[in-house]
Amino acid sequence: MAQYKVIVVGASGAVGQEILQVLEEKKFPVGDLKLCATSRSAGKEMLFKGNTYKVEETTPSSFDGMDIALFAGGAASKEFGPLAAEKGVVVIDNSSHFRLDPEVPLVVPEVNPEDVKWHKGIIANPNCSTIIMVVPLKAIYDAAGIKRVVVSTYQAVSGAGAEGISELTEHTKAVLAGDEVVPAKFQYQIAFNLIPHIDVFQEMDYTKEEWKMVKETCKIMHDDTIGITATTVRVPVYRSHSESINVETKRKMTAAEAREVLAKFPGIILEDDPSNKKYPMPLFSSNHDEVFVGRIREDNSLDHALNMWVAADQLRKGAATNAVQIAELVIKYGCLGKR
Amino acid sequence: MAQYKVIVVGASGAVGQEILQVLEEKKFPVGDLKLCATSRSAGKEMLFKGNTYKVEETTPSSFDGMDIALFAGGAASKEFGPLAAEKGVVVIDNSSHFRLDPEVPLVVPEVNPEDVKWHKGIIANPNCSTIIMVVPLKAIYDAAGIKRVVVSTYQAVSGAGAEGISELTEHTKAVLAGDEVVPAKFQYQIAFNLIPHIDVFQEMDYTKEEWKMVKETCKIMHDDTIGITATTVRVPVYRSHSESINVETKRKMTAAEAREVLAKFPGIILEDDPSNKKYPMPLFSSNHDEVFVGRIREDNSLDHALNMWVAADQLRKGAATNAVQIAELVIKYGCLGKR
Repeated sequence: MAQYKVIVVGASGAVGQEILQVLEEKKFPVGDLKLCATSRSAGKEMLFKGNTYKVEETTPSSFDGMDIALFAGGAASKEFGPLAAEKGVVVIDNSSHFRLDPEVPLVVPEVNPEDVKWHKGIIANPNCSTIIMVVPLKAIYDAAGIKRVVVSTYQAVSGAGAEGISELTEHTKAVLAGDEVVPAKFQYQIAFNLIPHIDVFQEMDYTKEEWKMVKETCKIMHDDTIGITATTVRVPVYRSHSESINVETKRKMTAAEAREVLAKFPGIILEDDPSNKKYPMPLFSSNHDEVFVGRIREDNSLDHALNMWVAADQLRKGAATNAVQIAELVIKYGCLGKR
Repeated sequence: MAQYKVIVVGASGAVGQEILQVLEEKKFPVGDLKLCATSRSAGKEMLFKGNTYKVEETTPSSFDGMDIALFAGGAASKEFGPLAAEKGVVVIDNSSHFRLDPEVPLVVPEVNPEDVKWHKGIIANPNCSTIIMVVPLKAIYDAAGIKRVVVSTYQAVSGAGAEGISELTEHTKAVLAGDEVVPAKFQYQIAFNLIPHIDVFQEMDYTKEEWKMVKETCKIMHDDTIGITATTVRVPVYRSHSESINVETKRKMTAAEAREVLAKFPGIILEDDPSNKKYPMPLFSSNHDEVFVGRIREDNSLDHALNMWVAADQLRKGAATNAVQIAELVIKYGCLGKR
């Protein structure tokens, strides 16, 4: 079986670490592995399949001779992504930089796998909240069409990286000890609080995070007629995002029908048995690759609509798992870069 | 100024304690004060205006000669509420037992104060999430009408009483220490988790909490044509509920218009200045009597619709403050019970 030369950029961050973990679990055919990051993290040692790798500072030559570059996100994508693609490396990028570029496919493998085929060197990994929503939406869409979506998110601190994760612990300890809480990564205390402010504010007073859910979903679904409105909120949870999703469908769909199509859809675990207290929660969806879907109800206020409650690991399906799945598609479809 | 004989039933619980606090802060004209609870709490001592009161076990004779009974909620309401009313005491009840009874007014003083006037001995205090939602909804309703509401809640543990509050602390400490978490009041670990299950499951797989928001809102607003669909979720926050509310109005309302009517409405603090990081949060709305409203945006997916984000203290406006405000109305309108 062929093996590939893989470079992970931003390897030492929360998403980077998770990418290594997922590559190993999925037995991705990694031949050579190179781990890169900013100079601040260079020299760190990381484990992959029992071997120790030293993190190097990312430079243009880091990409020479590599097949696949997995960018964990951040400023490196803009700086090195196009350059890596020019060198014939297929870039799978977790930053928001290229997502809405019409020359760049934006891919969730369960939803629009074929888009991988037309890449021109860069394939974008969508926003975490978008990925988690679009998987169940696609199941509904294929069965009944979608007119409009109203979504409210409950987003874990892992979305703000390793610093977000440690800040939740620090803030929590400070509150319990009665000490002063000092926000750094977050705008305010995140322990025992909710912050309805993720990423920067943009037009119409929506945050960039909220617009990402709107625009990226339409691009992934190839349908600009879907109306989507979002309210995104940071919650004191470590690593699984949850979403309360109201979907207005084109044709009437019963809750039973919705359960059936969702249960059959790839990448979804249906967890919808209220009488046995079974519903998605951040606690039990963490460290899993799937999107957990439950609390499926026909909307009592509108005939062609459904409510559902969704949870999925932000670092896994929301980032690393989706990126590695894209890399698997690149291999499956034989569309590596040309050198 | 006239003074009134007030009995608080369930005085030692989270809501009961808050009722005493609010009576004192609002300088409610308390003449005699009697504190009652179950036998389990009888004998406890509590402070009111610097004086110590001993909690007595609630019995039928507890209500003899009293003017106003504030029931904090729970089983006592059903057992003693009608009996107290028969004795000529005005019962203001925080349980869900009488709320949908057509013979019992369900009152949020900023929304339907006049309903106090037709009470027949019992006035019901609405569900906490309902109160917090209906105050801003009424402002919108009066200005532009309401067709439909899609709401997702982020509910504090105080909604599960004093045990809910202590369980969040216990679970949090256990997680940080790596100890086993033992849920008692909640279905699962609540620290660093979200539980989409408040109260029992009922028809169409909605929880009772979700139906309360639907049915109580229509009753308070005197309008059964408003479509309301709710998803209610417990979050690891101590005492302020938050809600993401999407409102479809009858006529188009701009975000600026909505801000104007909300700012003017009694009981609301408009906190909507994203560029200065001002928006409602549980942390800063706790221990306040008002409903904080912000993140007001025209819905980008529908012409006549708005999104907003609301937070308010569950024990205050969601329970004790609203109950004491109702008691104030009873006095203002001169509609005490007849003995």
